[in-house]
Amino acid sequence: MEYDIPQATGIDGLTWTPKKVISDARGAVMHMLKEGQFDFPVGEIYFSLVKPGVVKGWKLHKEMWQRFAVPLGRVQFVFVDQRTQSKSKDKVVSLSVGPENFGVITGPPGVWYSFKNTVDGDALIVNAPSIAFKPHESVTEDLETFRFHDWQ
Amino acid sequence: MEYDIPQATGIDGLTWTPKKVISDARGAVMHMLKEGQFDFPVGEIYFSLVKPGVVKGWKLHKEMWQRFAVPLGRVQFVFVDQRTQSKSKDKVVSLSVGPENFGVITGPPGVWYSFKNTVDGDALIVNAPSIAFKPHESVTEDLETFRFHDWQ
Repeated sequence: MEYDIPQATGIDGLTWTPKKVISDARGAVMHMLKEGQFDFPVGEIYFSLVKPGVVKGWKLHKEMWQRFAVPLGRVQFVFVDQRTQSKSKDKVVSLSVGPENFGVITGPPGVWYSFKNTVDGDALIVNAPSIAFKPHESVTEDLETFRFHDWQ
Repeated sequence: MEYDIPQATGIDGLTWTPKKVISDARGAVMHMLKEGQFDFPVGEIYFSLVKPGVVKGWKLHKEMWQRFAVPLGRVQFVFVDQRTQSKSKDKVVSLSVGPENFGVITGPPGVWYSFKNTVDGDALIVNAPSIAFKPHESVTEDLETFRFHDWQ
């Protein structure tokens, strides 16, 4: 496994970067980002604690890039590319991530996403997007919009 | 409760900033930092998963400021000010933090710290310090050094 090298996912601009975890009997240290690997600024840092079985989405950001990491539980993210000019238009990508395959999902603006906690316990998503929240920068759609029911 | 206003702790430069949590039946969203509230840059972002009862420390950074948040479990941090020029020299401050009193601890370089997971389950610390890790920037001491045994 090569760490810190972004992997293509099938959607243009959406990448998955494996990150190293250092574990011992006392716990684990998981590195999300560091100086020199910031492809864009950190606009804010926030956490989403997601209860078992909960699905959230769809959401689309007009300007904001996302950087998601999941240090607790397991979360399935689904991304749908509806960008008219995209090389990967109409592509759907599903990524299931947690501490066992720790890394960072980088998602571009303009791509719809939703996510589900697929484990019995709580899951935690850490997001370090490129800009801070601002009103009207994101749009939402009902979960049925893309009729994606293939949750794990 | 006034959010986003740093509270003094008794050690010069060490503050505690309460942060808002938005909870519902699906989970919670916890904001750690956002643009305009960055008192210093984000040099890296990493997570420490700490097993129950585990104590880590003592550690002192020569240059790095710390920003700690605990979105899972409960962690007791102890800070010891041994800075010769400090207004609060020899002061010891203990802060017990978790999702129930969510916020950010900002710790200056030159202050010793250690921490303990005081709950039965795992605890998670998110750190967004001012610079990335570099060798010899931090020093460690045996846990017995300050003979602080007043863990919760």
